[in-house]
Amino acid sequence: MLDLRSDTLTMPTQEMLRAMWASPVGDDGYGEDPTTNALEEYCADLFGKEEAVFMPSGTMSNQIALRLHTRPGDEIVVEESYHLNTYESAPSADLAGVVVNPVRATDGLLTPDLILAAVDGKCRDPRYAQVRMIGVENTINYRSGRVVPLASLHPIREFAQANGMAVHLDGARLFNAVVATGTTAKEYATTADTVSTCFAKGLGAPFGSVLVGPADLMREARYYRKSYGGALHQCGHLAGAALYALRHNVERLAEDHVTARALAEALLGEPLLGVAIDEVQSNIVIVDVSNSGLTAQRLTELAHDEGLLMVPISRYRVRFVTRMGISMSDVLTAAKIFCDLVDQHALPLR
Amino acid sequence: MLDLRSDTLTMPTQEMLRAMWASPVGDDGYGEDPTTNALEEYCADLFGKEEAVFMPSGTMSNQIALRLHTRPGDEIVVEESYHLNTYESAPSADLAGVVVNPVRATDGLLTPDLILAAVDGKCRDPRYAQVRMIGVENTINYRSGRVVPLASLHPIREFAQANGMAVHLDGARLFNAVVATGTTAKEYATTADTVSTCFAKGLGAPFGSVLVGPADLMREARYYRKSYGGALHQCGHLAGAALYALRHNVERLAEDHVTARALAEALLGEPLLGVAIDEVQSNIVIVDVSNSGLTAQRLTELAHDEGLLMVPISRYRVRFVTRMGISMSDVLTAAKIFCDLVDQHALPLR
Amino acid sequence: MLDLRSDTLTMPTQEMLRAMWASPVGDDGYGEDPTTNALEEYCADLFGKEEAVFMPSGTMSNQIALRLHTRPGDEIVVEESYHLNTYESAPSADLAGVVVNPVRATDGLLTPDLILAAVDGKCRDPRYAQVRMIGVENTINYRSGRVVPLASLHPIREFAQANGMAVHLDGARLFNAVVATGTTAKEYATTADTVSTCFAKGLGAPFGSVLVGPADLMREARYYRKSYGGALHQCGHLAGAALYALRHNVERLAEDHVTARALAEALLGEPLLGVAIDEVQSNIVIVDVSNSGLTAQRLTELAHDEGLLMVPISRYRVRFVTRMGISMSDVLTAAKIFCDLVDQHALPLR
Amino acid sequence: MLDLRSDTLTMPTQEMLRAMWASPVGDDGYGEDPTTNALEEYCADLFGKEEAVFMPSGTMSNQIALRLHTRPGDEIVVEESYHLNTYESAPSADLAGVVVNPVRATDGLLTPDLILAAVDGKCRDPRYAQVRMIGVENTINYRSGRVVPLASLHPIREFAQANGMAVHLDGARLFNAVVATGTTAKEYATTADTVSTCFAKGLGAPFGSVLVGPADLMREARYYRKSYGGALHQCGHLAGAALYALRHNVERLAEDHVTARALAEALLGEPLLGVAIDEVQSNIVIVDVSNSGLTAQRLTELAHDEGLLMVPISRYRVRFVTRMGISMSDVLTAAKIFCDLVDQHALPLR
Repeated sequence: MLDLRSDTLTMPTQEMLRAMWASPVGDDGYGEDPTTNALEEYCADLFGKEEAVFMPSGTMSNQIALRLHTRPGDEIVVEESYHLNTYESAPSADLAGVVVNPVRATDGLLTPDLILAAVDGKCRDPRYAQVRMIGVENTINYRSGRVVPLASLHPIREFAQANGMAVHLDGARLFNAVVATGTTAKEYATTADTVSTCFAKGLGAPFGSVLVGPADLMREARYYRKSYGGALHQCGHLAGAALYALRHNVERLAEDHVTARALAEALLGEPLLGVAIDEVQSNIVIVDVSNSGLTAQRLTELAHDEGLLMVPISRYRVRFVTRMGISMSDVLTAAKIFCDLVDQHALPLR
Repeated sequence: MLDLRSDTLTMPTQEMLRAMWASPVGDDGYGEDPTTNALEEYCADLFGKEEAVFMPSGTMSNQIALRLHTRPGDEIVVEESYHLNTYESAPSADLAGVVVNPVRATDGLLTPDLILAAVDGKCRDPRYAQVRMIGVENTINYRSGRVVPLASLHPIREFAQANGMAVHLDGARLFNAVVATGTTAKEYATTADTVSTCFAKGLGAPFGSVLVGPADLMREARYYRKSYGGALHQCGHLAGAALYALRHNVERLAEDHVTARALAEALLGEPLLGVAIDEVQSNIVIVDVSNSGLTAQRLTELAHDEGLLMVPISRYRVRFVTRMGISMSDVLTAAKIFCDLVDQHALPLR
Repeated sequence: MLDLRSDTLTMPTQEMLRAMWASPVGDDGYGEDPTTNALEEYCADLFGKEEAVFMPSGTMSNQIALRLHTRPGDEIVVEESYHLNTYESAPSADLAGVVVNPVRATDGLLTPDLILAAVDGKCRDPRYAQVRMIGVENTINYRSGRVVPLASLHPIREFAQANGMAVHLDGARLFNAVVATGTTAKEYATTADTVSTCFAKGLGAPFGSVLVGPADLMREARYYRKSYGGALHQCGHLAGAALYALRHNVERLAEDHVTARALAEALLGEPLLGVAIDEVQSNIVIVDVSNSGLTAQRLTELAHDEGLLMVPISRYRVRFVTRMGISMSDVLTAAKIFCDLVDQHALPLR
Repeated sequence: MLDLRSDTLTMPTQEMLRAMWASPVGDDGYGEDPTTNALEEYCADLFGKEEAVFMPSGTMSNQIALRLHTRPGDEIVVEESYHLNTYESAPSADLAGVVVNPVRATDGLLTPDLILAAVDGKCRDPRYAQVRMIGVENTINYRSGRVVPLASLHPIREFAQANGMAVHLDGARLFNAVVATGTTAKEYATTADTVSTCFAKGLGAPFGSVLVGPADLMREARYYRKSYGGALHQCGHLAGAALYALRHNVERLAEDHVTARALAEALLGEPLLGVAIDEVQSNIVIVDVSNSGLTAQRLTELAHDEGLLMVPISRYRVRFVTRMGISMSDVLTAAKIFCDLVDQHALPLR
């Protein structure tokens, strides 16, 4: 199967497995896992924050970041396409008691004006929830992997600070943005109070994430991590994979960006398909199939029969993701399969 | 001041006050307040439900209804203009751990198709919250008091039952709908598992609400009411006001509908003002002032100086509400003041 | 019936009802209820705190105080007999996400040493919840109405401040303590960050409570009050009862203390009954019936048949409460009925 | 260092590491990790339940089990020494909104009578929380690893079923009980609705846990696992360690029981030390040091200087745990070091 569903499918390489195996471990329940400690120090330094906390998943990093910046009954503002809205509004209500106010930006980029309008539009008064946190996603998954430029983040941080709000950067794929722009993780981190990133996407670790921020907040994060069931024991094997990924797999992400771009351009060869080509800035391609008269679900099923996998993310949109193990030849084959399917099955008069 | 901000401003009449003080009372903490008990029996019968629970406010009725129908991490679907979305999404997250999925209907009326689209549009899978409750509002406050017809509610109940969802009817102003349509409260109640109504709006009681539904759920409601701090002691005085209101003030709501309609038509005399006249079916008039070039806030301030009060509900919309104590002459005066202000202050080239 | 179950049974007098009726009202939803505003100012002054918020019940005052001082996952320390433990541990978990750590003090009085032991005894480390609030109850309901002396409260406040904890005083019956000791409400309030009191117990209002504290916390309290459904409209009628109670019914509480004392002494005439006579310092008498061989439940049923009502609060303890409307003659009659029942029904060989 | 602090310190063996890295993996986010799927099937069969869900930690298994059996505002009953009380009362309040009612049993074993007394003692009425779950721990960590016999569990399950309560078995060290008694995991599982066990204790996996139960509850468990951040990607490496542990490391636990017993007996050679020898039924020894006049903390520090590590679990109690890698010689050395320290440092006149 030609599997372009997600970069979470990236398999650990033999070198990464060897690094994992060779990592010294101890019981992180006592703070004694040397590789986890090394990873946390490495990440704190890499992001220029006081402390880092290793987490099992990006969802836990995000959900615990919410706990640090808000109290139940508060509100957070995000762009509507962000993971914090599309997948995490329910856990945010459930676990943090926080309501997500999703703003729509045509390009997926929050601005102070948009945030202000979202807050003002409700004629804010004490009967409404207070906005305590702004969530930014970089790169933006559901915006074809659009990279958020540093210049757009400074004004959000300033706005937030002027209004008593925190900024959390959901950097699940931040290193794709780093590679695409040359902006460092540390520079991006200056625009947020806390930052999370995932090791299990393009970086290729089996799983794991990290949350970075000020020491006092990270102490609280460790408490909540225990409560949520995210405190582990000999997690150094995992931390070893993450360290390996940060040291060896970041620059390689550039290759995924080249293949994603090639895929997007090849798909545009089919006039019934829509791709926001200017948004394809990293390793994700989202295709609008509505002109084909076929649903994303139907096309996904047809493609499956041809040995091609991708994800329907709404009624008429499918997502392709490139990653280690997906070559230029693979994406051109995928584009051909997909365009052929559209040619054969499109319902012209729709 | 000519005060058209809300029907919650309705003052108890001397007759109501006399009824309140004449009501026999006891300690409802022991279930021994005779007037509260009488009110609860009266309401159970009026709505055709097994039991009724007296509540201090409509917000508590709604918030506790949520608790009965959902578990934290669940989702509820409402139309975006409903109180459950505009004012209660934060308490719903805070107290019930539930996320509100607001659907947009052009006329404010939910339909099975709209609900299905809202659920399907997210490519529902087990990673998403399950929808356990549909919330309906009748009349619809932020839709100029539009009345929800019984015929539109039956299909929602059927859809809900077929999909394992409950229906809660937020009938804060249900008796306005009853008077406007001739549909009884009992008929409306057949389309919902639980119904709440408020005594403190057009019905003129100082405060109080009731939640009705099946006996097992109402037992749970009493438990949550205690937890939320809504179990009172000699509340029979209040229950007496509510009983008086139900017996004497329902039919009178028709007068407010006449004055609201007259107000809406008078406001339409000013071409810069927009009123969705077909929505003005009860005692609320919402005016779009965007063509005046003035914000709702600015016009509210100007009107205040002329002795007229109403509420800006968004950047360019103001709300007028009629009620006991607001006469036909009052609304015509109000319309004249408001139209004159628009004439004088409108920014024509905008 | 001779009803000694609770002082929440106190009925409003005709004078109070007249005061309620005569109170000017407005919509507190807009902050315009003059009597509620007057009550809040009166209470802020009476307790020497910046602001006061009128609440429907003492439970809501306490539960919202918790929200001001803690975050979910925190812990509060109280003595095990306090209402915050016996009745509010479930809502504290449900609504505030807070765990109650109940300390046992032989006399019901918390001390810094007891609190320290409760915290230390768990070998506190970051895996445990942090204690953010100490709750004090005065008078102590389930300790026969014992009065907490001011001198015992100062060290708790000092301990709390030294350890980053807040103090909330659950003063449901604080005015009984005021009358019993001569210590003013203001003096008591200096030992706590927030104080609640109830108007519906010995003070005789139908229902209602107040929470007092610093202005910033009280602003938050208003937000939560709205979420919990405790924001009312023309609540001035109730506030008028509360104002009347504070102005006219405080000194009278002394009479209830005299009758409670007399009741306790009369009950001690029956050798099978146990009364902690030194704890009977206000209007409550708790009787240990275990030597009679009868359960509290059984004796309550027997007494009911003789026209006497009280409350079984555990397997072998019953509670009598004196209040306005219960005379010296009443309590002597009650004691006689109860002692006679014990004489007749006690199971001697137990 | 001679490290007897916990069996969570057990290091994966080379054989286990080889099994981990040889395990085929896939993305469990898509349900495609073959080793995780194999582990879940293996565990469902091993426990005789419909389904199993792999979890990162025992805390997450327990916390999610709570969510399945309760709603916020409910109560659960456990014995006071259980992990659900000592470590999880705060997350239970925080995340599940549930209050833990800790019962004291002299031997740590819950009985229907004890549970009934805990519920009755509060004169249960609708104002109190309803008990929806009973939590059992086996073996009991803070009772020196006492094994809960199957015969004592059947009556609890029957009581629970008769009273509408669920039973969750926190079997973090259930396989120690299995080895100690010969009762199978499947037999133990018949006494509970859901069971959790940990792979990271005596079984020696780096981390991980499993929750087993009926299919409908396990579907919900997967939803909550995602919300809590416990859904991972290529977790097959971990699942491989767990499978290896279940297949190779269960019988070996018997050795730890022998060394623990030897340690307990050796410690009893020092008359100032107290050990509930009848409770030492698996791999844990809890020692009461109060007669030495030294605190657990002080003795722990002294032992540390002699190269011996254990955990102070309260002011006067220390815990030793045996595990793979701790030999008979090790425990005898440990006992000698500890007894010598007591001899040298005890404060005789205490």
